[in-house]
Amino acid sequence: MTSDAGGPSSVTVELLGVLAYGELSAFDRLAEDARAAPTLAGRAQLSTMAAAEIGHFRLIEDHLGGAGVAVADAMAPFVSLVDSYHASTAPRSWLESLVKAYLGDGLGADFYREVAGWVDPATGELVRKVLADTGHSAFAEREVRAGCAANPAQRDRLALWGRRLLGEAVTHAQRVVAERDDLAEFIVLGSGERGGVAGLIKTVQVAHGRRMGRLGLS
Amino acid sequence: MTSDAGGPSSVTVELLGVLAYGELSAFDRLAEDARAAPTLAGRAQLSTMAAAEIGHFRLIEDHLGGAGVAVADAMAPFVSLVDSYHASTAPRSWLESLVKAYLGDGLGADFYREVAGWVDPATGELVRKVLADTGHSAFAEREVRAGCAANPAQRDRLALWGRRLLGEAVTHAQRVVAERDDLAEFIVLGSGERGGVAGLIKTVQVAHGRRMGRLGLS
Repeated sequence: MTSDAGGPSSVTVELLGVLAYGELSAFDRLAEDARAAPTLAGRAQLSTMAAAEIGHFRLIEDHLGGAGVAVADAMAPFVSLVDSYHASTAPRSWLESLVKAYLGDGLGADFYREVAGWVDPATGELVRKVLADTGHSAFAEREVRAGCAANPAQRDRLALWGRRLLGEAVTHAQRVVAERDDLAEFIVLGSGERGGVAGLIKTVQVAHGRRMGRLGLS
Repeated sequence: MTSDAGGPSSVTVELLGVLAYGELSAFDRLAEDARAAPTLAGRAQLSTMAAAEIGHFRLIEDHLGGAGVAVADAMAPFVSLVDSYHASTAPRSWLESLVKAYLGDGLGADFYREVAGWVDPATGELVRKVLADTGHSAFAEREVRAGCAANPAQRDRLALWGRRLLGEAVTHAQRVVAERDDLAEFIVLGSGERGGVAGLIKTVQVAHGRRMGRLGLS
């Protein structure tokens, strides 16, 4: 599954393309959401989280660039599906933004942490670096818990929101895989007896539940 | 002009407050403008420029935090004036966004480079670091020149736009100073025989003209 030129395999380029556009679009959404922050400190915090996505994006850009692949080319096939995910999960409040950022980062990290073991070592290392927690989780956990403590109805709404985010993410990820036989094959081979795409989704669901718990939403 | 506790002077906190909010709001505007990029590569580039502003913002936040000042408190008095500058100079096209980012960064850098010599050494060093060119100027110069080469009427419009940006920036900066006697006094004392606020504006105008030239707009 490696290319003729010995560069990254086409599946690796696809995985990094989705990840890169995931980071770029997360930047865009977080930057937009930052405007709705209730305080200047919160706005600065969410803007900083957005900027961190670009730090990750650039790591991928450099990695692909080193292999002669323009990140824009790698991202292009996935723009409309990722945009569709964001359009279907547009936050309507500050706390929904934070929950989405927190859970969305987590979902992406779960998936790519699994995948990191199935790609070439240099790409695996890159992926682990990109997904390292940037230290903003604690902020989201604190804000969401505080918001819910002040308003229990809020907690129920956010718990529903968290479940919807998982559903939309899984649906959209399945559509990406359904459109690409090589990706599906890569996941089936990589996951082995852990059960292919279905097994991967199960793993992600369990971790999602734990994160909901940390936000006080389980 | 130092505070009783030996921390940064109140004027230093004001200068860093304006600079910090300038960075945070520039981030916000660039992130918004990035969406209007004609290509995915251009969008990534402008998003990266936006993220760099947050890197600068955090340097100021850490510096102020080390002196026991919350950056949000330092920024608060300047939010409405800086927002008013941005509202009066909302770009209507991709090239207007690039010209604004390029010239705006330059104007800020001119002002703060002067001021860096008038504050305590640690703050001066911080300011020089914050204003170091992040390497994105070359991108803006190339894009703007290419856009104008393809369309000379475009060049005339952008030249007008560049002059308007200077006018709005100067007007808004003057309003900041007019509302704060300590800032006015600080500039008069710092600039010495170079002519106070008027002398500073002159310096900024000359550098602005050089930058317009580098964009091919003089």
